[in-house]
This record gives sequence, C-alpha cells and structure tokens, in this order.
Amino acid sequence: MVMGLFGGRREREHREPAPPVDLTMLPVSGDSAPAEIYVRVATLTSLGQMPELKREIYKGNILLLDVSKIKRDKLTINRAVKDLKEVANDLKGDIAGIGDQWVIVTPTAIKVDRTKLSGEGGF
Amino acid sequence: MVMGLFGGRREREHREPAPPVDLTMLPVSGDSAPAEIYVRVATLTSLGQMPELKREIYKGNILLLDVSKIKRDKLTINRAVKDLKEVANDLKGDIAGIGDQWVIVTPTAIKVDRTKLSGEGGF
Repeated sequence: MVMGLFGGRREREHREPAPPVDLTMLPVSGDSAPAEIYVRVATLTSLGQMPELKREIYKGNILLLDVSKIKRDKLTINRAVKDLKEVANDLKGDIAGIGDQWVIVTPTAIKVDRTKLSGEGGF
Repeated sequence: MVMGLFGGRREREHREPAPPVDLTMLPVSGDSAPAEIYVRVATLTSLGQMPELKREIYKGNILLLDVSKIKRDKLTINRAVKDLKEVANDLKGDIAGIGDQWVIVTPTAIKVDRTKLSGEGGF
C-alpha cells in the first residue's frame, strides 16, 4: 500500500494546491497507545473557525493550517495570523509559514526549526 | 510585519508548489526557552538525505518533508516512504501525507489526527 502512496495522483498535473490526501491507508501497525500531542490539519475558510483552531493549540496540539483558500482575502488572513500569533506568544510556542499554502502553529516547547536540513532544505 | 505575511506573494499566480517561505520575520517574542521538540522542514531530493532525516525523527523531532521534487520518481518516493514508515513504526509515531506535496512523520506520542476540524477540514 505504501508503494501506491502517490501513484493515483501522478498521472495528472497539479496546478493548484490539491485537497489534502487522507493517508489512513498507511496505518502505523502495533500502535495503540494514545498520543500526547496531535497534529491537527485544517483548511481555513472563515474567521468563525478561529475559536476551535485556537483551542486545539491551547490543548497542546500542533495546528497545520491550509490558508490557500483565504489567501487573497487580506483582511481575513491578517486577522487569522494575528490571532494565531497571539496564541503562539501566549504559549511560548511558535508560528511559521510553510510554503505558500500552510501555516504551522505549535504549542509550548515545540518550535519550528528554520535551519536547512540536507538537500535543498526546507526553509 | 504580520500584516505583510502573504502580501508579497499575492500579486502573482502560483501554479506550482512555491518554495517554502521563511517567516523568521515573525519571531515569537519573549521566548528564549529551548524547545523540547522541533518541527524540521526539508525538501527531499535524493535518498542520500534519508539517514539525516531519519535521525531527526529518532531524536524526537517532527519531520515535515516536501516530496514534490521527487514525486515523479516512483522508485525514490517509494523507498523514502518505506524508510520513514519503518521509523514511525519503530517509534510508535505516525506518518501521513498532507496534500500532494508534504509528508509528515512524527515521533513517539505524537499523532496526526485524521478527523476534520471545522470548515472544510484538513483531510
């Protein structure tokens, strides 16, 4: 199943950000222990989501937020980032943009490393 | 500065995954405590990077890996994902695809949540 991870999507061009793929077909076997921290993935479409998104970070989870749908709405993106930055500040976590599509917000004691790893690096 | 987060990139169309943006211009103030966990962002271009990438996860860090550059190289992507899945299994962490571009690999006690948050959700 791992072999087909990107197989179904390789045939066509992706000119725009594609909807996230559910890779639940890639279960990690032998793992039944509850997680202490979750990576929550969400797509931001309105400011009405902010309370829920902020709550996740306050709960100690990591938020990976797809902002591509509201990127052209300057007012909304600015307000959302401002809110999330306040949460990161409050918790002494971190906030960073990942590419053009994603914003990651981390809770206490989790930071986004800005240094390059090997290859062409991340940031 | 927050206000300009995506300002510089809004003017042009992004038809392909853009290089990640360094948002170090968004420092989280008042935070000098060392992080316990880092989110390491990297772009996979060859299997030669695998030892370093795997080491990061074994160190307890989260790997956010841009696989867009090698997605058409079936052999490389399959091998890389197989390796990373073994690490996730070994550590009882998690591995998931985020959109078409990213693979996230988490260490012990950190999981990727597959349920939807509000809005259009993540996965």
